[in-house]
Amino acid sequence: MTERPETPMLDTVHGPDDLRRLTSEQLPQLAEELRAEVISAVSVTGGHLGAGLGVVELTVALHYVFDTPRDRLIWDVGHQCYPHKILTGRRDRIRTLRMGGGLSGFTKRDESEYDPFGAAHSSTSISAALGFAIANKLGGAPGKAIAVIGDGAMSAGMAYEAMNNAQAAGNRLIVILNDNDMSIAPPVGGLSHYLARLVSSGKYLTVRQLAQRFARKLPEPLHNAARKVEEYARGMATGGTLFEELGFYYVGPVDGHNVERLVHILENVRDADEGPMLVHVVTKKGKGYAPAEAAADKYHGVQKFDIISGEQAKAEPGPPSYTNVFAKALIGEAERDEKVVAITAAMPSGTGLDKFGARFPERMFDVGIAEQHAVTFAAGLAAQGYRPFCAIYSTFLQRAYDQVVHDVAIQNLPVRFGLDRAGLVGADGATHAGSFDLAYLCTLPNFVVMAAADEVELVHMVHTMALHDQGPIALRYPRGNGVGVALPTSPERLEIGKGRIVREGKKVAILSLGTRLREAEKAADILESMGLSATVADLRFAKPLDEQLIRRLLTSHEVAVTVEEAAVGGFGAHVLTMASDQGLIDAGLKLRTMRLPDLFQDQDKPEKQYADAGLDADGIVGTVLKALRINSVGVVEGARA
Amino acid sequence: MTERPETPMLDTVHGPDDLRRLTSEQLPQLAEELRAEVISAVSVTGGHLGAGLGVVELTVALHYVFDTPRDRLIWDVGHQCYPHKILTGRRDRIRTLRMGGGLSGFTKRDESEYDPFGAAHSSTSISAALGFAIANKLGGAPGKAIAVIGDGAMSAGMAYEAMNNAQAAGNRLIVILNDNDMSIAPPVGGLSHYLARLVSSGKYLTVRQLAQRFARKLPEPLHNAARKVEEYARGMATGGTLFEELGFYYVGPVDGHNVERLVHILENVRDADEGPMLVHVVTKKGKGYAPAEAAADKYHGVQKFDIISGEQAKAEPGPPSYTNVFAKALIGEAERDEKVVAITAAMPSGTGLDKFGARFPERMFDVGIAEQHAVTFAAGLAAQGYRPFCAIYSTFLQRAYDQVVHDVAIQNLPVRFGLDRAGLVGADGATHAGSFDLAYLCTLPNFVVMAAADEVELVHMVHTMALHDQGPIALRYPRGNGVGVALPTSPERLEIGKGRIVREGKKVAILSLGTRLREAEKAADILESMGLSATVADLRFAKPLDEQLIRRLLTSHEVAVTVEEAAVGGFGAHVLTMASDQGLIDAGLKLRTMRLPDLFQDQDKPEKQYADAGLDADGIVGTVLKALRINSVGVVEGARA
Repeated sequence: MTERPETPMLDTVHGPDDLRRLTSEQLPQLAEELRAEVISAVSVTGGHLGAGLGVVELTVALHYVFDTPRDRLIWDVGHQCYPHKILTGRRDRIRTLRMGGGLSGFTKRDESEYDPFGAAHSSTSISAALGFAIANKLGGAPGKAIAVIGDGAMSAGMAYEAMNNAQAAGNRLIVILNDNDMSIAPPVGGLSHYLARLVSSGKYLTVRQLAQRFARKLPEPLHNAARKVEEYARGMATGGTLFEELGFYYVGPVDGHNVERLVHILENVRDADEGPMLVHVVTKKGKGYAPAEAAADKYHGVQKFDIISGEQAKAEPGPPSYTNVFAKALIGEAERDEKVVAITAAMPSGTGLDKFGARFPERMFDVGIAEQHAVTFAAGLAAQGYRPFCAIYSTFLQRAYDQVVHDVAIQNLPVRFGLDRAGLVGADGATHAGSFDLAYLCTLPNFVVMAAADEVELVHMVHTMALHDQGPIALRYPRGNGVGVALPTSPERLEIGKGRIVREGKKVAILSLGTRLREAEKAADILESMGLSATVADLRFAKPLDEQLIRRLLTSHEVAVTVEEAAVGGFGAHVLTMASDQGLIDAGLKLRTMRLPDLFQDQDKPEKQYADAGLDADGIVGTVLKALRINSVGVVEGARA
Repeated sequence: MTERPETPMLDTVHGPDDLRRLTSEQLPQLAEELRAEVISAVSVTGGHLGAGLGVVELTVALHYVFDTPRDRLIWDVGHQCYPHKILTGRRDRIRTLRMGGGLSGFTKRDESEYDPFGAAHSSTSISAALGFAIANKLGGAPGKAIAVIGDGAMSAGMAYEAMNNAQAAGNRLIVILNDNDMSIAPPVGGLSHYLARLVSSGKYLTVRQLAQRFARKLPEPLHNAARKVEEYARGMATGGTLFEELGFYYVGPVDGHNVERLVHILENVRDADEGPMLVHVVTKKGKGYAPAEAAADKYHGVQKFDIISGEQAKAEPGPPSYTNVFAKALIGEAERDEKVVAITAAMPSGTGLDKFGARFPERMFDVGIAEQHAVTFAAGLAAQGYRPFCAIYSTFLQRAYDQVVHDVAIQNLPVRFGLDRAGLVGADGATHAGSFDLAYLCTLPNFVVMAAADEVELVHMVHTMALHDQGPIALRYPRGNGVGVALPTSPERLEIGKGRIVREGKKVAILSLGTRLREAEKAADILESMGLSATVADLRFAKPLDEQLIRRLLTSHEVAVTVEEAAVGGFGAHVLTMASDQGLIDAGLKLRTMRLPDLFQDQDKPEKQYADAGLDADGIVGTVLKALRINSVGVVEGARA
């Protein structure tokens, strides 16, 4: 156990009310202690560190100046909220972050009244804040809404849509642009260049300048003309016109690590009646912890680590991750075929495309947090004869569903989707689970949908995708490490819509899709030991289904079970639909579908999550026995009667 | 039949090559003739008129200046492409627009090589154009990509995401901002104010000014400093800084109805090497046709009409549309409950919320083409205690799927979704069909999903939604008119997850969800006449299912059929899953699911589309008979053997 830091002042702060009793001169010390506590906590839990360290002073200042929870403070993404959690009554549980039963690694409504809107995906905060602000306006209630959003999150269209609608909120809306010139990866795009110019173009705004600006109001008759002049002057002096054109009053740039100045400026912003305000705060990701500041990723997400050295716990040596196998396989395809290109939406390392980009810098496109654009951009590349691979987490492809339908599926364009993090994802919890892709993709005409059972299959499937020019094709694979099978020296092209038998049995058929295959095999072992001979098949394709194989399995076994790492409406539902279409259920069919439960599962270790979902060997065995009406001690229930 | 206009010059233009043989002095006449032909064609077909009339000169100029189809011309949305279709070899079929077997009302890849990228949903064009431009850059191929996008479409986040990524394309990308100060409804938001300021702030750019601007390039040493000064000067003189900050070279505003000047300016733009260009063209929706110019909606979408008077064919007198019933019911709820608010994404008239807004201007929010923002904004309102109704077409809610999952479902916030245009939609074709909502919503935990069988049910369901504070709830209903049942004087609250029996029979059970109910009843009549007694149930809820009722129906009838106006993976798949979960299929169950076919159906009359899909009375009867193994002359097939 790491020694806890000395935090005498923080120890007196049990909530924002206590914080507000401090003098502003005391705040730097509080911030210092808060930072030490964050570092200490994350050193034992792992999690998101760099982002939280960057907003320690901002967190203190916001709770000091605003009347939370009445004023609604909404952290975009929420991975920077650990200091916020500590200050809002959750310090006693801060060392349970991201663990089963512990605090969420993001903001979460049912965790605290200080979390008015949960998050985890990016760029939602301004829209949500507008909802709160307008609700208060309609109800004549006091209370502002403050969205804190990073510069990376600003690249998403959703943030722009919200800004474009902000004026209706008047001065009830405050957007804090937390500009650390980083999201998970370095930022991309025109906006980030723009922000960099704003920051480099002048010195930080002083409190005095701010006061002058607000004071420089003019009597109504002169208002328009003089205001215009002033606007141009402001635009040139401090920039910000982009935001001003969208209807914001721009304040900045402001030093995000000078807590006293932040307090003064935020007080001015709070009390102004200028319409929606955008405060451009410049922070440093990883601030105040030398190893984080020095690291390229600013300790965005870390394992447990040693506070003195900053050295993170090494992951257990093990098989390569699916992400790495995907990246390596894709590089292989690109070496063979110059038309293969790759697209990521701000997840170069998470998808492994950083490696692809290192090998083929001209053929890798990181479009920023912009999944919608990523997909339609890929569709355009495909329409012009390229073979684009869109590598996007399953949960984030939800952001581009209409583009998948409208630009890819309807036009039958051969865009390849690599859906990393399919299924349950562990510590990131429900928001990051890739549970719905089978339902939302298999319903679409023209789509081919595959799931890899292990890393060898993944390699074959990447190759199969590369060669599939007939239309869209998606491949899902989980977070985490492969099972340790040796990778093939050369990939095979799989026949579209054909599964494979992994082991042959007689009484029970387990139809597996994806990486539950190993649990299916374990289940088969258990069943065999009970005298129930089991076939295990890896269907490989959720769409099109291997109708021939499925038909044979269903009709030649006494009971059949489908297993998938996805919510209802996916693989199992399509197998049932096929069985019904073909009349296979007419004469009686013991077919069960195993899938994720119809609820959002909180964070935990993945194996625990799958066990909770019943999607492990024991769960499969239980389902088979129940279908056979055999109870746990092997007695056929029907035989009793 | 209306008399065709005299079009001597247009008659010589069979494609862009012919157009390019004209002198630029001849283009005004050609534009005039093209406009007359568009008016003539749409007067007999109906369709989108105002948008096409606004871009007649632009269409001529673009094909004149650019080397289409090698240069890729991409029309955003595509509803303004009728003049483009006429100029690109489809004039002979222009009077089949939007008819079954005829030309699509949008651009479509398999219709012409001049349609490099299909559309219909808005704001995709810049992303697609970037795909083409980057593909050409990678391949070292010549060819530019030109996206023509309206000011309304610019309010969508996707357009912003694309602009933020445009710099990579260099001068291969040209964006034409077609600013007519209109989408379907008047524009909203900060951007539209900004554009209006740009247009009003100065005179149109002249060709001479443009030439001067391009000429004013400086030697490298002076480049940076002088360029900065020039940028500010340009920004002040003509605005456009918002686009320039995102990496575009801004040109404009340009008069979009002076075809000769347009040609000169576009030639300059084509030949410039300034990086991606944005040309701000100002047009008038409905231009050149007095009745359209005078109408509030600029004849956005019209019925057949009389050219002289502009009078549109009246729809057959009939029952009110579902849209109107929804709007009226919602106004009723809002009168009873001040917490009821309504949100539309640029579809006030399409969703009927214009009427709601007229009655409750403070409580209706048109956020522009910004479905993502609409949903999360609604979630924020719900989190603050309001009862938001998000009225979004089924197909457009795809744009906000992640927000539905992440901000609404996971947080279990009571946002109400009114999904207009569910199912097949007729003349708008595959892109507008609301086919997937059952699959993509029913897979989500916490969601309640309803479908209205007729307009009375719609009224009850709107009431049920208003009172449902437990979590998210969606209601789907079709395009078009109700069935003519008398509307209730006061709405009833339905029990969540409970269906109803519409008629009792014995042998056959038809489980209907949605407005196929009338066809189900007709099918029951036919079956009765064959001696097959049929129960018809309206399940009302796709989620949660009425398990008790379904169980009873499945176990007490010889055959059961589910019927829904949606793609595979929806209601029927969930009924099958339930039947499998409960072991109802173990002993044999003749259950069939009827749904939309697994393909994208082209435009046609809705009843024809449903017949093609097999989702009419005959189709239901056929499915039942086949399941019963009775052939069309009433002989049981098994009995023959």
